[in-house]
Formats: sequence, C-alpha cells, structure tokens
Amino acid sequence: MNKAMGFLRHSFHQLLLFSLISFSCVSGTQFSIPRLGALRRTTRTEPKITSTSVSKDFKTFFYSQTLDHFNYRPESYTTFPQRYVVNSKYWSGANSSAPILVFFGAEEALDNDLSGIGFLTDNAPRFKALLVYIEHRFYGKSIPFGSREAALRNASIRGYFTSAQAIADYAAILLHIKKAFSSKNSPVIVIGGSYGGMLAAWFRLKYPHVALGALASSAPILYFDDLAPQVGYYAIVTKDFKETSEGCYETIRESWDEIDKVASKSNGLSILSMKFKTCKKLKRTFDLKDYLDSIYSEAAQYDHPPTYPLSIVCGGIDGAPKGTDILGRIFAGVVAYMGNKSCYDMNEYNHPTDETYMGWRWQTCSEMVMPIGHGNNDSMFPPAPFNLNKFIRKCKSLFGVQPQPHWVTTYYGGHDLKLILHRFASNIIFSNGLRDPYSSGGVLENISGSVVAVYTINGSHCLDILPEKKSDPQWLVKQRKTEVQIIEGWLAKYYTDLLEFRDRT
Amino acid sequence: MNKAMGFLRHSFHQLLLFSLISFSCVSGTQFSIPRLGALRRTTRTEPKITSTSVSKDFKTFFYSQTLDHFNYRPESYTTFPQRYVVNSKYWSGANSSAPILVFFGAEEALDNDLSGIGFLTDNAPRFKALLVYIEHRFYGKSIPFGSREAALRNASIRGYFTSAQAIADYAAILLHIKKAFSSKNSPVIVIGGSYGGMLAAWFRLKYPHVALGALASSAPILYFDDLAPQVGYYAIVTKDFKETSEGCYETIRESWDEIDKVASKSNGLSILSMKFKTCKKLKRTFDLKDYLDSIYSEAAQYDHPPTYPLSIVCGGIDGAPKGTDILGRIFAGVVAYMGNKSCYDMNEYNHPTDETYMGWRWQTCSEMVMPIGHGNNDSMFPPAPFNLNKFIRKCKSLFGVQPQPHWVTTYYGGHDLKLILHRFASNIIFSNGLRDPYSSGGVLENISGSVVAVYTINGSHCLDILPEKKSDPQWLVKQRKTEVQIIEGWLAKYYTDLLEFRDRT
Repeated sequence: MNKAMGFLRHSFHQLLLFSLISFSCVSGTQFSIPRLGALRRTTRTEPKITSTSVSKDFKTFFYSQTLDHFNYRPESYTTFPQRYVVNSKYWSGANSSAPILVFFGAEEALDNDLSGIGFLTDNAPRFKALLVYIEHRFYGKSIPFGSREAALRNASIRGYFTSAQAIADYAAILLHIKKAFSSKNSPVIVIGGSYGGMLAAWFRLKYPHVALGALASSAPILYFDDLAPQVGYYAIVTKDFKETSEGCYETIRESWDEIDKVASKSNGLSILSMKFKTCKKLKRTFDLKDYLDSIYSEAAQYDHPPTYPLSIVCGGIDGAPKGTDILGRIFAGVVAYMGNKSCYDMNEYNHPTDETYMGWRWQTCSEMVMPIGHGNNDSMFPPAPFNLNKFIRKCKSLFGVQPQPHWVTTYYGGHDLKLILHRFASNIIFSNGLRDPYSSGGVLENISGSVVAVYTINGSHCLDILPEKKSDPQWLVKQRKTEVQIIEGWLAKYYTDLLEFRDRT
Repeated sequence: MNKAMGFLRHSFHQLLLFSLISFSCVSGTQFSIPRLGALRRTTRTEPKITSTSVSKDFKTFFYSQTLDHFNYRPESYTTFPQRYVVNSKYWSGANSSAPILVFFGAEEALDNDLSGIGFLTDNAPRFKALLVYIEHRFYGKSIPFGSREAALRNASIRGYFTSAQAIADYAAILLHIKKAFSSKNSPVIVIGGSYGGMLAAWFRLKYPHVALGALASSAPILYFDDLAPQVGYYAIVTKDFKETSEGCYETIRESWDEIDKVASKSNGLSILSMKFKTCKKLKRTFDLKDYLDSIYSEAAQYDHPPTYPLSIVCGGIDGAPKGTDILGRIFAGVVAYMGNKSCYDMNEYNHPTDETYMGWRWQTCSEMVMPIGHGNNDSMFPPAPFNLNKFIRKCKSLFGVQPQPHWVTTYYGGHDLKLILHRFASNIIFSNGLRDPYSSGGVLENISGSVVAVYTINGSHCLDILPEKKSDPQWLVKQRKTEVQIIEGWLAKYYTDLLEFRDRT
C-alpha cells in the first residue's frame, strides 16, 4: 500500500464518520441547503409542500422537559422547553379510545416532518387518529439553555444529549398528552424513520406501557458493534450503481485513481478545481472525494420513484459526449444531480454550522458508533475499513470524551435478536427498502408473529413513510397497505384486551 | 380531631416514610443490630450460618463500574469499584450452555446474601448453574468515591444513586461475566427479593437480551403512584394480628390511646420510659409508637415458620399474668420478641448511621416513593394517611431535591399491567406470601402464560428464596418446586430456540 492510499484510507475514514452517516428521512432538511420543502433536491420540479399549507391544523406546544431523567443531582432537575405538535383534526376522541399516531423527531428540526411524513397525515382519517410530532432534544427549537451553539460547546450540557434521555423525553411528553387529552385508553403507535426509526423500535421495547406498537422505517438497529458487516453500506451503494448501469459503476470505480493522478501533477489541485468548478480552490483531494462519495451515497439512499436520483447521476455520467474523459464524465454526473450551478461547494454535505451535522457528529462520537467502512472486493470505492481506534482518537480530540461503542447493544440489545425477542416483545414493524444502503443494518426477517420485517426490493430510505403519490409504484402501495393492516391487527387485539384486562380503578 | 391526633398523624406519617419501608429479605441485616447470621433475630436459637462457612466457594471480584450510564458528561465517565461474587462449584460450564443464576443485591451490603439467599445455593446443583451475586451501588463495598458517608452527604454524588443506574450496572457486569466465562449462550436467570425483586422484574423488562427470566420475590412493584391502596400494608399487618389472636389485636388497638393517656400525666414520659425500659428517657411518645409499629410490622412481614415471630409477640401480649394492664401486656410482647434486655433502644429501627436506613431514605426521597399509610377502619393502628405534600416537603428539607413520585410508573410502568404485558414480555415469576404486608403491592394474578404469580396464603416476605429447611411446611416446599419447574420450562424453550435462532456469526 503506498502512502497516498494510506492517506486516502484515513481521509475516507473521517468522511465516513461524520458526513455520510447523517441519514434522515427527509433528505432536503439535513444539509445547508434550502430547508423548506420536504422532498429531495433532485425533485425540485415537483410541487413543494410548504409548512404554511399544513400549519392550520397543527398546533405547536412546548413541554417543560426534565434535563436528566436518570439521576437526581441538583442540576438534573433543570428543565428546557421541548417542542411538540398536535393535529386533532381527524381524531374521533378519547371516548372512542381512538389511536394516537406519534412521529418521533430525529436528528433535525421538526418543521419539515409535518408535511414530510406522509404516513401520519395520509392515515389519520383511516385511523381517526390524533397526530403528535415530538422534536428530539438538542435539535430545532428544543434546546437546553437557549442557543444550540452554546449547548453543544459546553461539555457538561451536551453530555445530556443521548438517545436514552431522548426516549425518556418522549415517554414523559406522551404521558402528559394522554392526560391532557383524557385519553388513557387510546393506544399509541410510534413511528420513526432512520435514527428516529431506531428510537421508535427501542421505545416499544423499553416503554411498552406507553406505546402499543412501533413502525420503524429504515432503522439500522443492527449497524452497531459487530452485528452487521462494516462494509454493508457501501456494498449496497455499489450494487445499486452496478444494477443501474455497469458503465456508470466502472467509471466511478476508475475515477478515484484518476483524481490522484491529476492531483499528482504540478498544479494538479488547480486543474481539479477547475474541472469540478469548485467554489473554492481545492486544498486536498479528500474534499472532492468526500463530496463525490456523499453524492453517490445520497443518490443510492434516496433512490426513489418517480425521479430515481441514482439514474440521474448515471444518466449524466453515461450521457456525456463521446470522448469525454473519466473526470469529465464524473462532473457531468455531478451537474445532472446537483443542477447547473456557477460553482459547486465541496462543503455542502459537511457544513460545520448545520445543526444535523453538528448534532449527529456528537451523537456518533458518544454512543451512536456505527462502524461503516469501505470494503475491498467489488466495491466502486477505494478500500477504507472502519478503524475503531482512529475513530475513538478523533472523537476524543473533538469532544474530550471516549465514545462508548458497546453501549447501544448493552442498553438496547441487538445480538441474537431473534433468539432474544422471539418470545419477548410484540408489535414492531421493521420496514426497509433494499436499495437503501442502511438496509444492510436493518431487520430483514420476521422475529415473531408480531415483530415483523416488511421490505421491498426496490425501496429506498424511509420511502414507506413519505407522502403517498399518484405516481407510486404498485410495490410501494402494497408495502404501505401491509403496514396499515398490521397496525389495524394490533389495534383490534388491543381493543379486545381492553375490555377484558383494563384496570377497573 | 384533637391536637394530639394531629401530631400523631404527622408523627406516624414520618415514621411510615423512613423506617417501616426498609424491607429487605434478610431482616437481620437491615438494622443496627448484629449483622452476622442471616436469620431473623427472633430465631436466635437456630444455628447461625456464618459467612466463613460459605466463603470457600465464593470468589469476590470488583468491577470498574461507570458512574453514569445515561449521559456523556465528563464526570459521567468516573468509575467506582463494584463488588460481585461468583460461585462456580456447581457450574457444568460454558460448553453445555449451563445457566447462570444471578442474585441482585438490594438496599444492603451483599455479605449475608451468600448464605441467606437459599434459592441460589439450594438449586445450583439441580441447574448445574454458575452463581453470581452483585452488590447494589452505594451499599456495602460498592461506594463511589470511597466513603459512604461522604458519598451520601454530597448532593452531586448521591444523585447517581438511582434504580435505573443500578440495573444498568447489573447489565454491564453480567455482560462482562458472560464474556469472562466465554458463556455467550448460557441463559441468565435473575433473582431478587423485595426491592431487589422489583429490580429483577424490571431488569427482565428492560434488558431481555441480558436475562432470560426473573424470579421477583415479594416485589411490590404496584406500591407506587395510585396503583395500589395506600392502606394495603397496614391492613395486612392488622389482618395478620387479628388472625393470630383477636385479643392481641384488641390490646394493640387500644394501646395507642393508652400511651397518650399516660403521657398526658405530669411526668408521663418518665412513666412510659420506665414501663418500657427505654435506654434513654423518652422525649416524645412518637419514638415509642414508632418502635412498636416497627416491631408489629416486622413481625408480620417476616412471620415465617417454624418460629412465627408474630405469634411470639402475641404470645407475650396474651400470656402476660392476669391483671396486667394494657401497656404492661404490650411490653410483655416487646420482651417476647426482642428478648430480655437491660433496656430497649427506641432507635433500633431507625439508626441514623445504618447503611440501609441512610440509603433507603434517599431512595424513597428521590424515586422510590411508596405511599404507605394507615387506614381508618378496622386497622389496629391510629389513622395516618399518606400525605404526599408533607412527604415532598420533608424530603426537600432533608436532601434539597424534589421527589419524583411518577417516575417509577413512567419508566417501568405499572398501570394496566395485564393489559400492557399480556402480549408483551415473558418469563417473570412474581412470588408472594399473602401474610407479607408488602404483598398488597405485589402482582397476584397471572399476566400471561409465562408472566405468572406464584403465591402462598401463609407465606411471608421473601420466604421462598430463603434457604430450605427440614422443618419447611408442605405449602412452602410446593411453592419453591413450582418456581423451579417454571424456570426449567423457560430453559427448555430457550435451548430449543438456541438451536433454531442463534446468530450464526
């Protein structure tokens, strides 16, 4: 292995840690680009759903949340305002014990979820459900001690920014809402996607007395510790590209060496900067590679109908005029995907002031240690295995504390999932689309009669919980219908049990 | 209601908070009296089991435990040595996936549990089990920052003394032990009594990936919030006395007014002090009433064969020479129960330096808020309902922080237990003896096929997990046998599942 490769591994290693694993459902919201409009940026031709069009039925509240649920130190009692939103338009009320559908906010502000999470709004009339959306602590308007920057800068304050605290927040708010709406007997179904999907599944496991069931969309609960292959994510990105276009896959695979080759020339970085119209002159090839890696990963992750962003990238690459060189074709893919711009910002995916970037970087450096690496064989990316020791060193230098890579499996489990949960737990749907690279850490087999996997071969990240569209393919319509039927089954059993088992007091 | 009654309610109120609800399994260990010998003080004629007789097969270890599992503040990473004890004498080893029986330490040092908790030692050969005993944080030798006094005095340190942290400790140590003994496939059964029984049940609910099942002996998981009647505890004490001797019950019932009557005389407290041979002159009637209340409650709680302490108390009261006045008969009961002493220490049950008293007082003042009150009707005690506001004020003045009376039901659940757990969870035995006053907060009906209640009409607190004796009555033998058979059933299913479902990695 030469030195350049060594650097590359290191660079990609960093990259994998802090940029690609931001992975919200509503991708338009996670970077430093326009935040309104919940749809992907490659579908800008579709009509935007703006928050004004949904605001009338959504009422915003702030709950005085306890900072630290698990200790009783004097500072644990500090409270902060946590935002949640309620839509009661379709609710048939407490007297009929009508259900409550709850969306768990994840690593971003809640705003776009109101229109972006179609599973709730599309199904509210069917279930006659109360809709509730809760923002995750340290995101959006739910920040302890005022400013996010200040909170994240302070080691003592950001230390409370953990998943266990977050789901305890959700429990407290849901019990509060059930009381406020006098809806003791209304069953709660929690819904989340991606990281929020993990929270939903874990919530059903930890708080079965608060949620009757969970829909965990694209939740890679097995991408921790040694549970799933570290190369799973990029293996799927590669497969997606290969399936879409063998030529596109080959071009990308060859491009990394080509970048290094150009860079090694005198003035090489200037040449690359011009070739890719970078907004600022490149200081290292890493930033370009990082940018391209992010585009390919994102295109694969959100490769949904009807636009299929991955095909747009490959359409650009494959459609470049005959005789265009490798890097010219790669750039044509960038232009096809990002649009025709005066220049391209290499920091677009890692903007240091972006709240998702900032927050998720902390979360991955404390407990959400997802060992995602590039593999060797067949991958269209250069090899870059996940290096835990380097990861730990990097996090320590950033935040001063040691990541806890075993905590997720200690607190939430994961090993021998079927053995453990086959006769324990109930009412969880793990939904996935197998074109989503994160499905490599998802639950893809039924655990029991009511802890089930519902996946589609062609689906992408969180696709099932996004708004229904007329253009939706049949397999997607069917997946959503299956999920609704499963939840209806939980509810039917619950209402039977309610008559038989509820406390008479 | 006259003023004296007002004071009495207040006094009893205090009393109920901080003395009676210490409720360990091995009662000899919880007060400031001789700690060696795990049996009750009223059975001093029986042979003592000393810790030396068990020490050879028990190996003591200390685990470097994380102070704060739920946050990532710099101070969260502090560690402290936590004691656990392992006995591998009967274990048939990792290769046979033989089970691990784990005793969860509770509100006392672990020392006496090694001989005192017969369920483990009696059943180790049958299960060919590894035995593990883990001490609860802040008790015994498992103290953060050295001295217990210093740790409990410091509001920032004692704030980490919570049940959620304690069961996370247990999870961390058990995963560590499973690794150290290369026993990934060995099923873990956790066992606890009283508060430790609550921890065992909650542990199975929160960490099903660590424990296959739980035996929760005399665990009043429903004595929180508004789940169980507040007067349940004293109603059972009263019933126990009434069933044993109507005359004894009547004498006790009349004695409280009699104490007040004597006290109201000039020199009344001196007369009472002499009548009850108190070690120090009484400053108020409360201390005497508190002492008597504790004796009656303890006698009822631990009213086990073959000695039946409650009968000993009533034997003293009923057997006093003809013509003895009410207080003389009460004192005869004290002598029968406590033994013939030169004087009687009214602080025996509330010794301020006793570790159980100190630790449990904090736990009840933070999260373990058990609303135990005296009822009106039929009770042999003067009325003294639980007063939450007074309780909160008292705790705030003691510790400066607000008790969280709803946290236990928020985190662990409890409302609508059968409705919630009938189709969720598995493998929990809730065992009770109905003569135990704490059974009023216990689970006394089957929740599902494998979350079951096993109780005896005549059993007392934690009786089923104490060592087997030749003198054990048939109903007790049968209760233990039932428990063993249920656990064998869990194990059989587990071994079948193991072949079918275990991760192939």
